[in-house]
This record gives sequence, structure tokens and C-alpha cells, in this order.
Amino acid sequence: MAAIYTGEVANWFSRTPRRIEVPRLRSRSLESTTTKVELVELSPDLVSFLGRSAYVQLTIFEGLSRAMSTAPTTAAKTAIGRAAELSLGKHRTLVEELGRTGATPAAAMEQSTAAVDAFTIATRGGDWFETLITCYVTAGFLDDFFARLARGLEPAERGRRISAIFSSGSGASESKAGESGEAVLAALLTEAIERDPRLASRLAMWGRRLVGDTMLVARSALNFTENHKSDEARIEPVFTELIAAHTRRMDALGLTA
Amino acid sequence: MAAIYTGEVANWFSRTPRRIEVPRLRSRSLESTTTKVELVELSPDLVSFLGRSAYVQLTIFEGLSRAMSTAPTTAAKTAIGRAAELSLGKHRTLVEELGRTGATPAAAMEQSTAAVDAFTIATRGGDWFETLITCYVTAGFLDDFFARLARGLEPAERGRRISAIFSSGSGASESKAGESGEAVLAALLTEAIERDPRLASRLAMWGRRLVGDTMLVARSALNFTENHKSDEARIEPVFTELIAAHTRRMDALGLTA
Repeated sequence: MAAIYTGEVANWFSRTPRRIEVPRLRSRSLESTTTKVELVELSPDLVSFLGRSAYVQLTIFEGLSRAMSTAPTTAAKTAIGRAAELSLGKHRTLVEELGRTGATPAAAMEQSTAAVDAFTIATRGGDWFETLITCYVTAGFLDDFFARLARGLEPAERGRRISAIFSSGSGASESKAGESGEAVLAALLTEAIERDPRLASRLAMWGRRLVGDTMLVARSALNFTENHKSDEARIEPVFTELIAAHTRRMDALGLTA
Repeated sequence: MAAIYTGEVANWFSRTPRRIEVPRLRSRSLESTTTKVELVELSPDLVSFLGRSAYVQLTIFEGLSRAMSTAPTTAAKTAIGRAAELSLGKHRTLVEELGRTGATPAAAMEQSTAAVDAFTIATRGGDWFETLITCYVTAGFLDDFFARLARGLEPAERGRRISAIFSSGSGASESKAGESGEAVLAALLTEAIERDPRLASRLAMWGRRLVGDTMLVARSALNFTENHKSDEARIEPVFTELIAAHTRRMDALGLTA
């Protein structure tokens, strides 16, 4: 499945700055760049944005529920359950926003099923550890991406409200402040790697594979113009930051991105 | 799997009053019988109760997430997602109550995995419709049962708080008032039966199979005394009411219980 993407992934990696240049000590949140709105010109319309991101959230949840079903311990099931609950809360909140536009939520989501399902199949892990790191890496990257993209939506107040749905790993308005599904997954992965250090190289490799497919599915949400060169110039700094956040996420597990 | 239960199921059905005698127009909630505490003598200790009910809630969620993954439409996925989110909220709230007792939640749940996993295997549906009605019937019955059983816990204030977790299909303190996962599932099932009326007899038969296994797993949560006859006398009126609620649940789908 992933093989068909190879050409474009390679193209993407060639645009990526060398890892050594990535600033490491910045805040995990992308708030420091709130004023940069490089992606505004490429923002999809509101209904497409919400349909795509709500469907992505649904597939993130499905990955988490698969990780729950195959979890080796009851404690891990309960822990992943919290991440799954937060993810379902985001999905529901996005569907509520869709309903507010007057669109039919399911029809809006179905515009994205082909692209997103292909991504899901390409990133399905071979065992529990890979499934878990897929949830961690892809949800983290895509939440960052959609939070950023939402800031280009009009009116600005609505854009800010929608952007907040994705931030800090929670999104659901009912979640406890600062609670993060990402932290839950990082703790489980760190524990697994400590227990079996041989996992580290396998998961690092899987993580590198994931980021390519994740960038592609993120790109497919953008509304490209006729001016390819100008589009790429807008996208590049955003993806550089998203990749830096990804690198910090892998660092948190002690893995090389 | 179910065959090994046959003797006891038959015994249980013989204790069940004939359907015709079941009062039909009572409130769906069992609140009218709050003052009856037949099960107090048979209540398990707090940690066992919470461990069992938290693990049951986890398996209810797993059934719902399976129903989501195999749902025929995106609209159905979103709808079941809300029921799944409410179920995860109940699980989390029960685990928080377990933590408050000083017990290790996972260890408390693991006392129940053998009995509950056997039940889950016996009630796993063969297709999406059976999976969905399994969620509807077993979650409804077991929520009613645990809500009732919790009223026998000490101190009474804690019993009331825990009982409320199971009621009205929600339980999670963050859920909107009166919102019910059960209503979501009933709507999906009713729609499916309207679209294909041949489903009715198959799902009615599956529902009858489910109620036997569900009664058995409920019974297995009770703390029997030496006095078998007195135990059964306490249990019978409670199960009669639980079966009446089950009958109303099937009636709501236009199915004979």
C-alpha cells in the first residue's frame, strides 16, 4: 500500500530540513506561531475541513479501540480507554460543528473516506506496539496540522474555536484541563520499550514510515491553487514545524525520529 | 459456549413469570423500587463490585467499538460513537471509584475477567445486527442490574453515587442530562428492521439467547450465602423486574422478548 506513495514521500523528505537544524527546546504547542497563517490561502472550505478532520478523528479512535482490544493488560486497556474517550469527544465536537453549518455530517465525512481509509490501511501496525505508536504519532501530527489549518477558517472566532478542539490532546469540552491522550500513549510506549529495549529500533523505523504517510494525508486536505511554487513555499515552513513536533514526540520515547 | 449453561438457564426461565403477567406501562427506570433492597444481603464487597462492573463496562465498550468498525454507514459510526463514549465514561468513573478505595483498579478488574470473558464470547454476534442488539440488550440489562446492586453498598451515600453511574444509559458525569446510549442503539436497530423486516425474527431469537447468558453473568456477581432458598427468594423479584425491563427494551424495537 505504502509503495505507491514512495515517489512523493521521497520528494517530501527532500524538502525537509536536516534533523540537526530542528530547534529542540521550543514549547510542544505551536501557539508561538499563532500569528503565522501561511496556510490560509490553502484552507479548504469549512464543510470540507470539518468533514475531513471529523473522519480522521474517527479513524484515530478506531486505531485506539484496536489497541485496547489487543492490550496485554487490563491496566493498559483502561489507560488507552481514556485516550479513546478523548478522541471520540473530539469527533463528536467536530460533528456538532458540522451540524451547525447546515451540512449533513455523514455526507461531509464521506468526501474523505477514500483518502483517509487508504492512509489507515497503510499505517495499520503489525502488532500491539506498532498499533500504539501509530496512534501516538499520527494523532499527534494530525491534531497539530488540523489545529493549524483551522486558524485559516472564517470567521476568525469560529476558526479559533475549531482549532481549540484539536489542541492539547483533548478537545472535548468536558475533558479535564491539560489532560492528554498523547501523554497516556507516551507512558505506555515508554514502559514497553524499557521492558524490552529491542523494541526501540523496530518502533523508530515504524515511526519514520508513519510520518511519510501522515504528511501525505495531511497534504491531501489542502486546497491547492494554480501556483504550485507559491503553494509549496507556504506549506514548507508549516511542515517543518510539524516535523519538529514529531521529532520531539519521538524524543519523548527515547527514539530517533 | 452457551451449551454449557443450558441447565441453569432452563432453571432460570422456569422461575420467570409468564410474559403476559409483566406490567408494561411502568417507567423504564427502576426508581420506583428504590426502597426495595432485596439484594443487600447478597451484595459483594465494594472492591469486587467495582472491579466486576468496571470490567463489564469495558467489554460493553469493546462490543460497541466492534459495532462501529463494522457499521455500514458513516452516520451509524458517529451515532454508535456517542454510545461508546458514554460507555467509556462509565468505565472511567468506576475505575476512579476503585482508586478511591485504595485498591489497584486493574487487579480488582482481573478478578472478573474469566467469568466476563466467557460471557463476552458466548454473546458475540455473528454480524453487525447481532453485535448491535447484543450491545443494546446486555448493556441495558447489566446497567439496570448493577444500578440496583449498588444500592446495597455501604455507606448509603456512596451506594447512591455509584448507582447513579449506571443509570439512564449515560453515567459519565459529563454527559448531557438524559442522554442515552440505549436510545442511539434502539434507533439504529429500529431503522435496520424497518429496512429489512426479515431481520425481526432472527434478532428476536438472538435476544432470547442473550438474556439467558446475561442473567447468568449478573448472578455470578452475587455473593451467595449458605441459605440457597433464602437467596433465591431475594433474587427472584429483582430478576423479574430486570426481565420486565428487558421485555420493554425488545418491545421498543417491535420484537417479542
